[in-house]
Amino acid sequence: MLNKVLIANRGEIAVRIVRACQELGIRTVAAFSEADRDSLAVRLADEAVCIGPAAPAKSYLNTPALISAALITGCDGIHPGYGFLSENPYFAEICAECKLTFIGPSAETIRLMGDKSIGRQTMRAAGVPIIPGSEGELQSVEEAVDLARQIGYPVLLKPSAGGGGRGMRVANDESELIRAFSTARAEAEGAFGRGDLILEKYLPKVRHVEIQVLADAYGHAIHLGERDCSAQRRHQKILEEAPSPVVTPEVRARMGADALRGIQSIGYLNAGTLEFLMDPDGNYYFIEMNTRIQVEHPVTELVTDTDLLRWQLRIASGERLTLQQNDIRIARHAVECRINAEDPERDFLPAGGEIEFYLPPGGPGVRVDSHLYAGYNPPGSYDSLLAKIITFGDTRDDALNRMRRALHECIITGVKTTIPFQLHLIDDPAFRAGNISTGYVAELLQRWKDERAAGVA
Amino acid sequence: MLNKVLIANRGEIAVRIVRACQELGIRTVAAFSEADRDSLAVRLADEAVCIGPAAPAKSYLNTPALISAALITGCDGIHPGYGFLSENPYFAEICAECKLTFIGPSAETIRLMGDKSIGRQTMRAAGVPIIPGSEGELQSVEEAVDLARQIGYPVLLKPSAGGGGRGMRVANDESELIRAFSTARAEAEGAFGRGDLILEKYLPKVRHVEIQVLADAYGHAIHLGERDCSAQRRHQKILEEAPSPVVTPEVRARMGADALRGIQSIGYLNAGTLEFLMDPDGNYYFIEMNTRIQVEHPVTELVTDTDLLRWQLRIASGERLTLQQNDIRIARHAVECRINAEDPERDFLPAGGEIEFYLPPGGPGVRVDSHLYAGYNPPGSYDSLLAKIITFGDTRDDALNRMRRALHECIITGVKTTIPFQLHLIDDPAFRAGNISTGYVAELLQRWKDERAAGVA
Repeated sequence: MLNKVLIANRGEIAVRIVRACQELGIRTVAAFSEADRDSLAVRLADEAVCIGPAAPAKSYLNTPALISAALITGCDGIHPGYGFLSENPYFAEICAECKLTFIGPSAETIRLMGDKSIGRQTMRAAGVPIIPGSEGELQSVEEAVDLARQIGYPVLLKPSAGGGGRGMRVANDESELIRAFSTARAEAEGAFGRGDLILEKYLPKVRHVEIQVLADAYGHAIHLGERDCSAQRRHQKILEEAPSPVVTPEVRARMGADALRGIQSIGYLNAGTLEFLMDPDGNYYFIEMNTRIQVEHPVTELVTDTDLLRWQLRIASGERLTLQQNDIRIARHAVECRINAEDPERDFLPAGGEIEFYLPPGGPGVRVDSHLYAGYNPPGSYDSLLAKIITFGDTRDDALNRMRRALHECIITGVKTTIPFQLHLIDDPAFRAGNISTGYVAELLQRWKDERAAGVA
Repeated sequence: MLNKVLIANRGEIAVRIVRACQELGIRTVAAFSEADRDSLAVRLADEAVCIGPAAPAKSYLNTPALISAALITGCDGIHPGYGFLSENPYFAEICAECKLTFIGPSAETIRLMGDKSIGRQTMRAAGVPIIPGSEGELQSVEEAVDLARQIGYPVLLKPSAGGGGRGMRVANDESELIRAFSTARAEAEGAFGRGDLILEKYLPKVRHVEIQVLADAYGHAIHLGERDCSAQRRHQKILEEAPSPVVTPEVRARMGADALRGIQSIGYLNAGTLEFLMDPDGNYYFIEMNTRIQVEHPVTELVTDTDLLRWQLRIASGERLTLQQNDIRIARHAVECRINAEDPERDFLPAGGEIEFYLPPGGPGVRVDSHLYAGYNPPGSYDSLLAKIITFGDTRDDALNRMRRALHECIITGVKTTIPFQLHLIDDPAFRAGNISTGYVAELLQRWKDERAAGVA
């Protein structure tokens, strides 16, 4: 087993990693930026090392500082969390060169899946369904136009690098496509340093369904069913659940088998997630793979009774994955709300301010993953995630009713949060019916804001 | 389903009841004493009614005030929680007369089991093993002496009414018994208004193991396995767990069948617990039944994936208990620590003071049932329970390692708590080995205090 792990991250995921390590008897070192000196992870970890100023490039993206911190404190492993360097193949490479175990897949795998276009082709070669579209990067606007004629409009242009929805453009006809091509290329260059674009069929009504996988170093891999993240706004997930209200056991088995074929074709190691779009007929298409732990991993942990973070650490330590596929049963329903410091009435504008009072919800069926405490002042340099409230129950309604209770009970003062909108969402009839696509939350938000402005709600 | 429930209790159990009601869509009214105006239950309930001054006799034991509060607010049910009026047959009777559903068994059942001596004879008649001892109350010291000769010393004298260990006396020989008889009688009269005593064989090394049962109004009943509460001090439980480290599946099935035969012989309704002592050979003896929800119910909820509070409400609403005996599987291990405002270094002296800062533990496998918040000043008129921290895992060690992590992470300032001793207990080798009897914690505490006084720990 690893002996001591450097946590190359911050916020709630840093706390999550400390907890998993403590439960396994692994010592922890929290790497923190100057802005995170007062963070909960720093308090909870066995040791803490400042790795630079607040700006991510100078701290959580600062490879030499992180590697030095790990070596100086005698760590034998580094957990990258999500975001920051978690999907950076160079970082994984340097860890390996310095004899530090990078808790994740190999640098080669990260590189392969980090390029969306190559990732998609790789999965297609393994028999995983993908959305009809370009094979590799587009060479010219003419190629884009030809391809769009073949697969039919609407089509989607997206950066080959990148993620999180940045730089994506929908074109409904040829003239829109021609205009979008140069804008999208310029945006991609600005955001990711590479202007390469791919094109695919745009599916206007889709759900976001993703499959969690675990694989050890001895060729054994399992999937842990799906998460449904269709409740998103501008590609930012605000509520996730497992299982998906639209995935049948048959579809789950098929998606899981596809995912496993896909990851075994690349010799995948450790935890990962294959993201799919699912159309109203239940057809699903691989879009990308996240080669790291995800924000929404707790819903899978709760419905399958597994601990993904511990498995990450155990697999990275060279242990065998002792879970077999038929150990994985979807025994419950779980829902996660991402509580962000954002004002839902003002288009989710990030909201700053010191947390004056904090009382997380408790009682049965509630889990809270958070780095908050009263008096904490979340630094403005990072994302606005304050807490993840996760509830579970025997049925979806049960989990959602519990979420209503938990959100009502949660007290966070001093900063605006997304809770008022999430309370509205979980009781929305279309959402309750499990009948939404990824565009729904934007519509619902607009109606909610209009109603509040009119004094109805 | 019940429409609106009055909560005739306070503290963490009042919060627990609010949560269960909210999740089932039942409205709640918190009955509170003047000392509990600022309590969390008052804040969370739909409505709240002051029922009198701080002194329990004037508020939480004040039947007319509670009944009036329920009628005035339009409640159709009353949940008594634990303690206070929860095992008072007159209160249950008056509820029935006022057409308020008492959430618990009938007044007759409460009366029957409230008398320890009659309760024991009733269970014996149903074939449940009991400790060798007097059949009914002792008529004289001579009877006590004769009986002790038959069953052998040591023997235990205890009040026929009462509980919680008050008024109990161990006698190792005849002269001790004769002396103890009059003292115990006087104590019992002082504490419970009745001097009746019973005598039984004293078992010096026993574990406390109890069986949880649920029964509906249609004759269907199940048991939910056992809880082990051997970690107690002066009959006050400080850590409880499920399953017991010493109960095999065979013994569990036998104890469960005995418990079911026992409760079916008295037409038991709703949730209840049969307490047993278990000797080192695995023989078990019924000692008493608690005809209410217990403080330690969460460990059973966590290992069996059931919600006992919701079942109490559903059964009281006239629903059928849809769980069958073979739905109940002990799938995990769970541990509960009762965090009390007591100073373990000073013999668990109750500690007062305002809670300055409170941050409960979070993350996977942790549940917190508490009424605490920063700024709360727990009234001195009631018990010292601040929070129940419950952890679960695949194995006992897993649950205990998680408890260590959770206790380390929990921050409560402004008041002394039992946490330092509980941290010591969970890593004690004898406790870890599952090898303790009910007297062990007192010994361990003494060693711990001595070591701390000597500056060792």
